[in-house]
Amino acid sequence: MKQGIFYAVGVGAGDPMDMTLRAKAVLEQADIIVTPIPKAGGTSAAYAIAAQAADLSYAERLDILFPMQAHNDYRERLRSGVLQPVCTALDSGRQVAMVTLGDVSVYSTASYVRQLLAEKGYATQVIAGVPSFCAGAAKAQQSLCENSESLQILPAVHSREAVETALEQFDNLVVMKAGRAMAWLLPLLRERGLLEHTTMLRDVGMPSEYIGKPELEPYSYFTTLLIKGGDL
Amino acid sequence: MKQGIFYAVGVGAGDPMDMTLRAKAVLEQADIIVTPIPKAGGTSAAYAIAAQAADLSYAERLDILFPMQAHNDYRERLRSGVLQPVCTALDSGRQVAMVTLGDVSVYSTASYVRQLLAEKGYATQVIAGVPSFCAGAAKAQQSLCENSESLQILPAVHSREAVETALEQFDNLVVMKAGRAMAWLLPLLRERGLLEHTTMLRDVGMPSEYIGKPELEPYSYFTTLLIKGGDL
Repeated sequence: MKQGIFYAVGVGAGDPMDMTLRAKAVLEQADIIVTPIPKAGGTSAAYAIAAQAADLSYAERLDILFPMQAHNDYRERLRSGVLQPVCTALDSGRQVAMVTLGDVSVYSTASYVRQLLAEKGYATQVIAGVPSFCAGAAKAQQSLCENSESLQILPAVHSREAVETALEQFDNLVVMKAGRAMAWLLPLLRERGLLEHTTMLRDVGMPSEYIGKPELEPYSYFTTLLIKGGDL
Repeated sequence: MKQGIFYAVGVGAGDPMDMTLRAKAVLEQADIIVTPIPKAGGTSAAYAIAAQAADLSYAERLDILFPMQAHNDYRERLRSGVLQPVCTALDSGRQVAMVTLGDVSVYSTASYVRQLLAEKGYATQVIAGVPSFCAGAAKAQQSLCENSESLQILPAVHSREAVETALEQFDNLVVMKAGRAMAWLLPLLRERGLLEHTTMLRDVGMPSEYIGKPELEPYSYFTTLLIKGGDL
């Protein structure tokens, strides 16, 4: 029997209309949709977004628990057999699509999953999506980079030093997953006179969306800072 | 009379199916579609892509000449009155959409146009698209950044020094508009042992698409290098 294909599908940053035509088509043709959930009984933001723009009613839904933990834990967890139902489905010739927020190539669990399945010999495809920093820049009507400017994208987690280094010499900087780091990020930006050049994007495309000056609490896991240095 | 709205629309990197649902909807409701052309009598790649996925037959098409020149020339050209037909259309209450390849916030002329129109007091909106580096990473099935890795995006034009600096200390690096710079980029990457960690993306989504080792000529304006350092 011909094995199925695994599709890692980026559904965009939160607004169903940001989904691509291909993401919609692939999800509507999938037999099984893998949805990453952060805790048992939890829901998948990516699935909820996709379901608003695509008809997912023909596909079986397969929740897989991905606790928000460090990188190595993820990989270990994946290798521990959590993907066995996916392999079984692919072996029986079914098409499996995994939904992920934003773009697959930017900090996504789906990327690890795809890699592991490819190592096991399965055919995989990646369906690109609009990353959150592009969706946020669009809503804020700001450019991320112009002409010969560079753009640097950093996650705030585990990298205060990296952020400080980046602020020494940068054109434009996007700091992702900034929520928990705001306590030290805000004073740092204020100190360097960069606060007025910073836009905070929280929960882009979701009901709790906030786009504006980086002052307003609460922050969330999906808090991104857009710091413009190139056009000062 | 109520003025029209100007929409800067990212249509994705070359494949019509990479267009978002919103880009399609906005283009199909527009009265006028502004298409940037590189020379008189030339065609717009962005328009050609959009026309494959959206029904543009109801909209009037307005070609505007944007020679591929330096940043300041663009701005000066825009200020010289080339946008007068757009302003006239907006003043008469018509909805105007400008198509651009990839995402609007990443090195796009539409971003300058939007900014200028906003300065003149017109209402503008940005419709995000899948940037070429995400579309290319998807086709190459590579991640751009994982876990705590950073991602740096640089245009090769006018910035050999910037590329060299970035190669001193980087996780993952995307070098855009690399075509003309390949003569010095390839030896530089070879010298630093990075060639085998580099993927070349040319004309992603177009018939002339090439994704693979960075050896194959010809290069083109839309040549991007993806250099992985984070997962070495």
